[in-house]
Amino acid sequence: MSDSFTYKELYHKKTGLTVGINKILFSEQSPYQKIEVLETDTWGNLMTIDGMVMLSEKDEFVYHEMLAHVGMFAHPNPERVLIIGGGDGGTAREVLRHSSVKQVDMVEIDEAVVRASKQFLPTVGAWDDPRLNVLFEDGIAFVGKAKSEYDVIIVDGSDPVGPAEGLFEKDFFTFCFSALKDNGVLTGQTESPWVSGYHSSIRKVFHTLEEIFSESAMYLGFIPLYPAGMWSFAFASKGLKAIDDRVEQRIEQGLKVFGDSLKYYNKNIHSAAFALPNFVAEIIR
Amino acid sequence: MSDSFTYKELYHKKTGLTVGINKILFSEQSPYQKIEVLETDTWGNLMTIDGMVMLSEKDEFVYHEMLAHVGMFAHPNPERVLIIGGGDGGTAREVLRHSSVKQVDMVEIDEAVVRASKQFLPTVGAWDDPRLNVLFEDGIAFVGKAKSEYDVIIVDGSDPVGPAEGLFEKDFFTFCFSALKDNGVLTGQTESPWVSGYHSSIRKVFHTLEEIFSESAMYLGFIPLYPAGMWSFAFASKGLKAIDDRVEQRIEQGLKVFGDSLKYYNKNIHSAAFALPNFVAEIIR
Repeated sequence: MSDSFTYKELYHKKTGLTVGINKILFSEQSPYQKIEVLETDTWGNLMTIDGMVMLSEKDEFVYHEMLAHVGMFAHPNPERVLIIGGGDGGTAREVLRHSSVKQVDMVEIDEAVVRASKQFLPTVGAWDDPRLNVLFEDGIAFVGKAKSEYDVIIVDGSDPVGPAEGLFEKDFFTFCFSALKDNGVLTGQTESPWVSGYHSSIRKVFHTLEEIFSESAMYLGFIPLYPAGMWSFAFASKGLKAIDDRVEQRIEQGLKVFGDSLKYYNKNIHSAAFALPNFVAEIIR
Repeated sequence: MSDSFTYKELYHKKTGLTVGINKILFSEQSPYQKIEVLETDTWGNLMTIDGMVMLSEKDEFVYHEMLAHVGMFAHPNPERVLIIGGGDGGTAREVLRHSSVKQVDMVEIDEAVVRASKQFLPTVGAWDDPRLNVLFEDGIAFVGKAKSEYDVIIVDGSDPVGPAEGLFEKDFFTFCFSALKDNGVLTGQTESPWVSGYHSSIRKVFHTLEEIFSESAMYLGFIPLYPAGMWSFAFASKGLKAIDDRVEQRIEQGLKVFGDSLKYYNKNIHSAAFALPNFVAEIIR
């Protein structure tokens, strides 16, 4: 998917993204997928998996802040957090900003993703934090063994083709429900609503969450390097609301402690992200 | 900017959009700009001006609904509306859904845009509505002559290079202020916050609006074919708020009348669009 000058990711026929690249920094076929890190002309270093953009140094803050903080602030006291996937380290970095956190288990199936990230996306991870516990295992099997252990689970997998396919299935979300404590919260990435090829996967995820969890909702963020620039996320919980006065108070307090380290997420964005355009609401009806 | 197979629009170095095209339906160098309409493989027919995407049949609803309804619902009784630019007809179509509207003056500098749109984007415009008054004139000169005539002015120009450059200048907004009646409302498109090359233009617009109008704010929408998928809009008024209980009531009532004709805009989106990510708020600080 790349030559020495341009990276292209097409998401529908010949429609997609073009990024200028200076050179390929990393290229490896792991047992699971092909991982590349490209030095781009605009976005810093950029990681692709099987030819699809995972993140760049310049835009990753949107995805990671939105995936992590919406769920973390919905919980009154998140101490134990499980991240499924997330091998670039960005989601863990955002989770670890929360001082309540005692342990983050990051279960990444592919050690090559972590190795490439540590070397070529060094600003993304917070690898030295002693609360971070990185495991190279199958996330679905891992979560299937956990019972009432986590306050927050964050599903940070790639697209529903290849090794991440199971992360969109009902069995997986049932495991997540069991792995969460009372009041547990789940968030996850759920693809671009502009890409019609993913509509059935997106619908299935939200119908499943609605069936299993007492609260569930979709929220959105602007991610320039993901197909069509609009990205959807899932929120689900065992009773906690995604937005209420207590959540807003926690965000206000929490963001004071974070200082100005966040570039996207704030209290207004937290609520606004749950407003869905009509055509998006229609997909998950 | 196009060959017989692919259209490319790069917004920073080699980063940008690629769209597959089947054929070029229209190509004309007018006295002002180069206008093309391309039949694409994904988005229906797509119009470009000087190589930049203006709209496609499949995604135009976002831009036009957000540009039109945010201002129209902020006004209690918009009867006379001025659209500067908007030659494809989509903004006028959305404005004309409002039953309060008695006259829409659409001032488009380039008749070739209207001609191409009528022929190759026939679903976009509402050209037969007797309330629509299309004028082929310079919008800046036109608005400079109007005094307290309009309830709502909508600035639907192209990017701040070429003939639309003046639509980002202080003189123009001063003219708009004078052309608006008391309680008048202005909205306009103000480029992508992800494109650093436009940051100074964006900042200048919002600082100017803040200086001239008593109310002003930025709002955002997801537009897949515009650079990086995030688009900003300006709201300004002579006293009316962009969001309050009365606005929300009007939206509720109004959307009942519209039926299910809108694909993006709704009451929650109206408010949510004004929530700005930190890095966007920073641009206009």
